[in-house]
Amino acid sequence: MKPWDSLSADEIALLQAIFWSGSHSRSSLSERLGYSKSKCNSLVSGLLDMGVLQENGLRTSTGGRRPESIQLSPQLGVLIGVDLGATRLDVAVMQPDLTVLARHTEPADVLAGPAVVLARLRTVMRQLLNQAGAQASKVIAIGMGVPGPVDFESAQLVNPPLMPDWDGFSIRDYLHKEFGAPVFVDNDVNLMALGELWLLQGKLKNFLVIKVGTGIGCGIVCHGQVYRGANGSAGDVGHICVDTSGPRCHCGNAGCVEAMAAAPAIVRQARLAAESGESAFLAASLASKGQINLEDVAQASRNGDTAVNQIIQDAGSLIGQMLASVVNFFNPSHVFIGGGLTRIGPLLLAAVRQSVYQRSLALSTRHLEIQYTPLAERAGVVGAVTLAMQETLRVRKDR
Amino acid sequence: MKPWDSLSADEIALLQAIFWSGSHSRSSLSERLGYSKSKCNSLVSGLLDMGVLQENGLRTSTGGRRPESIQLSPQLGVLIGVDLGATRLDVAVMQPDLTVLARHTEPADVLAGPAVVLARLRTVMRQLLNQAGAQASKVIAIGMGVPGPVDFESAQLVNPPLMPDWDGFSIRDYLHKEFGAPVFVDNDVNLMALGELWLLQGKLKNFLVIKVGTGIGCGIVCHGQVYRGANGSAGDVGHICVDTSGPRCHCGNAGCVEAMAAAPAIVRQARLAAESGESAFLAASLASKGQINLEDVAQASRNGDTAVNQIIQDAGSLIGQMLASVVNFFNPSHVFIGGGLTRIGPLLLAAVRQSVYQRSLALSTRHLEIQYTPLAERAGVVGAVTLAMQETLRVRKDR
Repeated sequence: MKPWDSLSADEIALLQAIFWSGSHSRSSLSERLGYSKSKCNSLVSGLLDMGVLQENGLRTSTGGRRPESIQLSPQLGVLIGVDLGATRLDVAVMQPDLTVLARHTEPADVLAGPAVVLARLRTVMRQLLNQAGAQASKVIAIGMGVPGPVDFESAQLVNPPLMPDWDGFSIRDYLHKEFGAPVFVDNDVNLMALGELWLLQGKLKNFLVIKVGTGIGCGIVCHGQVYRGANGSAGDVGHICVDTSGPRCHCGNAGCVEAMAAAPAIVRQARLAAESGESAFLAASLASKGQINLEDVAQASRNGDTAVNQIIQDAGSLIGQMLASVVNFFNPSHVFIGGGLTRIGPLLLAAVRQSVYQRSLALSTRHLEIQYTPLAERAGVVGAVTLAMQETLRVRKDR
Repeated sequence: MKPWDSLSADEIALLQAIFWSGSHSRSSLSERLGYSKSKCNSLVSGLLDMGVLQENGLRTSTGGRRPESIQLSPQLGVLIGVDLGATRLDVAVMQPDLTVLARHTEPADVLAGPAVVLARLRTVMRQLLNQAGAQASKVIAIGMGVPGPVDFESAQLVNPPLMPDWDGFSIRDYLHKEFGAPVFVDNDVNLMALGELWLLQGKLKNFLVIKVGTGIGCGIVCHGQVYRGANGSAGDVGHICVDTSGPRCHCGNAGCVEAMAAAPAIVRQARLAAESGESAFLAASLASKGQINLEDVAQASRNGDTAVNQIIQDAGSLIGQMLASVVNFFNPSHVFIGGGLTRIGPLLLAAVRQSVYQRSLALSTRHLEIQYTPLAERAGVVGAVTLAMQETLRVRKDR
């Protein structure tokens, strides 16, 4: 039994408010929750005594008493966040206030299947716990993002196009057996959206996160909550058609934006530019290494390679065309773009912006901001840990 | 001062629950609100004494006591709902439980400007109140839908493409001066969505309503609430591009679905089919009346006219192409199609369905239902009255 298994609904609501807003003073907490000052003070005192909360020293006072800020205590245990992309694994161990204790990223290949990938993940998780000085019994919960559609309740992948061997595999059972902690699994880009929502402390209510990597997906925040759709497949924008006479996609339709503008399409076009000699820089890379990867494309772009910059411009324009439809429909305040393709540099973002502003209605874009994700490459793990903490608190509150 | 101006937050919550679920028994109300039976009974008794609620006779008991159902009392007053389309005005006076007391529809032309249209609307409203036997002082609130983007807080139209003379005009001030009641204005298709949400008693949480008439718009229900977007322009799907080499739209872009598949585009193509003699039926209509309208197109379709049915098929297919993008993004459980174009018959719906199911991802469409709006042509006025009642209760609760 963990120290907080016996908390009341009011106490959990207080912990939720602290988690979502960073550390806080007593007076701002009572305001936020609509509790009287005395009720708030007594809840906080009880939770300090139990070691669930801790005081964080003095902070700048605005004139009132008790300027100390209150935060979730590291004594509660640790959270593990996993961001599994199609080609990369990112794992972090964090405190309940999302201070990073240990983090590790490495290349991965989801096509190797769950047995191989999860065996490696288990090892990395143990090493990071070790590094953080935490035992497995101190793990509060585990959150994990995967690059495919997830049935959120069962935590299973449903017909994932990029990772067919994982269909119906229970990541939850596997990791729960290993660590004995609750496991929550979601689509990777939903978790990026959740991570940004945490960072923004709920200040933005309606925004999108677009991940452009091996595929293209979208996380949706609506009315201040991540929106997963009727069957958990909301945000599947990679298969929006941007050219009815475009190349055939693995999904069977023609001209999907994912088939024309995600990382594999860009690398394929870059290779053609290398082979044809259109790009002297990439021709040299190909000759010396026998292959072209996204890093070569980024390097060529930074060198001002015209052929490569045209490829990036075209991809950004197609992504912008898809986004214009989505923005007309959803009218978000912000669109954040993340994922591996953002390493390619600022040109992609410029092309996306130009395309959206040209095609969307004045009213939808008048105040629209399009930028790279504020959390950059950390969005996935931060979102995974946020999910773990959010669901842990929700389960206790609903009980 | 109205009898319910002094109600407590708990009492208002009870009225909201009754409004959103139709009439109700005491026991189902206490369950729904999480109030104890005694608290619920005492609230209901007080509201019955005040004349805010009334008992509605016996209803089939499920075994417990007190099988009477409780509903909002007609003594509270009446609500007026207005659905202003680009070419049609629909006005209704209803009781608080949305029983229709009087209703009138007639052709209208929003291009005539607010002075002409609202003067006529005022006359119709007074006639309907008369017919319903209600004085202007009994009007609880007025809800109105308009065919353009609305800033919900100020109740003003913002750059409405179909009704440019109304830009910045305050419908609220005009009608409030006339009737002294609160006035709430929203986009017409948001109100269709709200009307369906009321009819469905919140059973569906995530669905879309597409209105196809002079323009094409979409109402969005997300997490069980109408979603208006960051600037109130969410659902502006008419300008999603379905053919990059398509005809130029009044918005300035090429190939917008509205420019290719809304009523004016269909009538234009039908006229060409009449002039070329491709459609013998329409050629005869044109010769006898000198013009072609949507009713002629519907008649030709019912007669099995091949040329006309191809036009309808093509329009449905383009609407379906736009919807496929939207469904991939939003993953709704249902899409309801309404508006003037639905009078054209079942062929349009069949073409839309075929196009969506062909282009959307299996996961998004596996359980997706596409049908005409359950409330049919009443969706707009029912939504307008729902808005009036919902906002009236919300304002009292937030006070």
